[in-house]
Amino acid sequence: MLLYEGKAKQVYSTEKENEYIVYFKDDATAFNGEKKAQISSKGILNNKISTIMFEMLHEKQIKTHFIKSLSERKMLVKKVEILPLEVIVRNITAGSFCKRVGIEEGIVLDEPIFEICYKNDDYGDPMLNDDHAVAMKLANRDELQFLRNETLKINDLMKEFFLKMNLKLVDFKLEFGKDSKGNIILADEISPDTCRLWDVDTNEKLDKDRFRRNLGDLVAGYEEVLARMNNK
Amino acid sequence: MLLYEGKAKQVYSTEKENEYIVYFKDDATAFNGEKKAQISSKGILNNKISTIMFEMLHEKQIKTHFIKSLSERKMLVKKVEILPLEVIVRNITAGSFCKRVGIEEGIVLDEPIFEICYKNDDYGDPMLNDDHAVAMKLANRDELQFLRNETLKINDLMKEFFLKMNLKLVDFKLEFGKDSKGNIILADEISPDTCRLWDVDTNEKLDKDRFRRNLGDLVAGYEEVLARMNNK
Repeated sequence: MLLYEGKAKQVYSTEKENEYIVYFKDDATAFNGEKKAQISSKGILNNKISTIMFEMLHEKQIKTHFIKSLSERKMLVKKVEILPLEVIVRNITAGSFCKRVGIEEGIVLDEPIFEICYKNDDYGDPMLNDDHAVAMKLANRDELQFLRNETLKINDLMKEFFLKMNLKLVDFKLEFGKDSKGNIILADEISPDTCRLWDVDTNEKLDKDRFRRNLGDLVAGYEEVLARMNNK
Repeated sequence: MLLYEGKAKQVYSTEKENEYIVYFKDDATAFNGEKKAQISSKGILNNKISTIMFEMLHEKQIKTHFIKSLSERKMLVKKVEILPLEVIVRNITAGSFCKRVGIEEGIVLDEPIFEICYKNDDYGDPMLNDDHAVAMKLANRDELQFLRNETLKINDLMKEFFLKMNLKLVDFKLEFGKDSKGNIILADEISPDTCRLWDVDTNEKLDKDRFRRNLGDLVAGYEEVLARMNNK
């Protein structure tokens, strides 16, 4: 049964109480849904790339919702209740941060920036600080501290992982969920839809900015990321 | 010599190296300068109200730039270099916070929200978190912690002060500056231009929202605040 339909994925219940199926669609959206397209095979690529990422993080003791890949577009995951927060890490300046504060893109930061946003399309996922999140009862202080620590750990692992394939991890967005026991675990997806990835030598963008900014064929970029993952 | 002209004040150098004169103008602006007006005697009222506020805080051991009032519109202050951060405290939901995240106005918060914004009109004073401020080299971690602690202390003192005159301190904006010895001290002004003040019984707004939202004569509101201060 379809439980939830997002911009790039659907979530279905299964016969098992504690398992869901995530279905990766071909829809691409940007600028809070203002720009839209169907990009053939994007869902397949994101499912494959996310699978590799969740398996890598699992090996490094990070708890995620991933159970296994079921088919080209289907991933079996643990049932979680998604927290209403988007978690962002920035290693190099780009995107909304540059636009909001008037800073040049491409500046390598001395230490990563950790950001939280309120997951709410009607308000364009506005940025919050911890006080806002607590006041809005979206998370408590301990949960926010856990999200920060866990996300910065994940950042270190992902940065190292991508660097081996000559990719810079510029920034990325994560979503976390609460499982049936109340544990907060990594959920959603990890793909070029949710990470900015630049070639180390050429700074070629191999992520969704190809779609946002018409920088070339999106599928070719995602296929290049997957090919480097498979050849590493 | 005029050193700096802002939206509501001018800053002049004096014969003394470490003293400036602040001149309070009658200009009112809102929505990042989109709405403008001259409101006769606003500057006089804000100078008087700020003087009372700085004197009150000084008595409570808060370090401020205030030295003395010189005339109706002139205040003698210590020379400081203003930090490029606006510091905001919210006790009750209102204004930009409600608009950004879609929350009703007038909700009393369990604990105050502390916010920092990048003081930059070209970008509409965008909100930052600590990581942004550090990355942008606007302040270091120790300075940010001091700003938070000092501001929350000031909030307690101001809340109590206004409550005695039957006013709710809804939210306010502060600016801090560095003096010649590198100490961070409270600067700028504290007035109904920078504080939302509501009557405890009627919730009548006695602050700049009268101008922003055409809620009635601004001067009458500010005069009411000053009268309550003088009668307390």
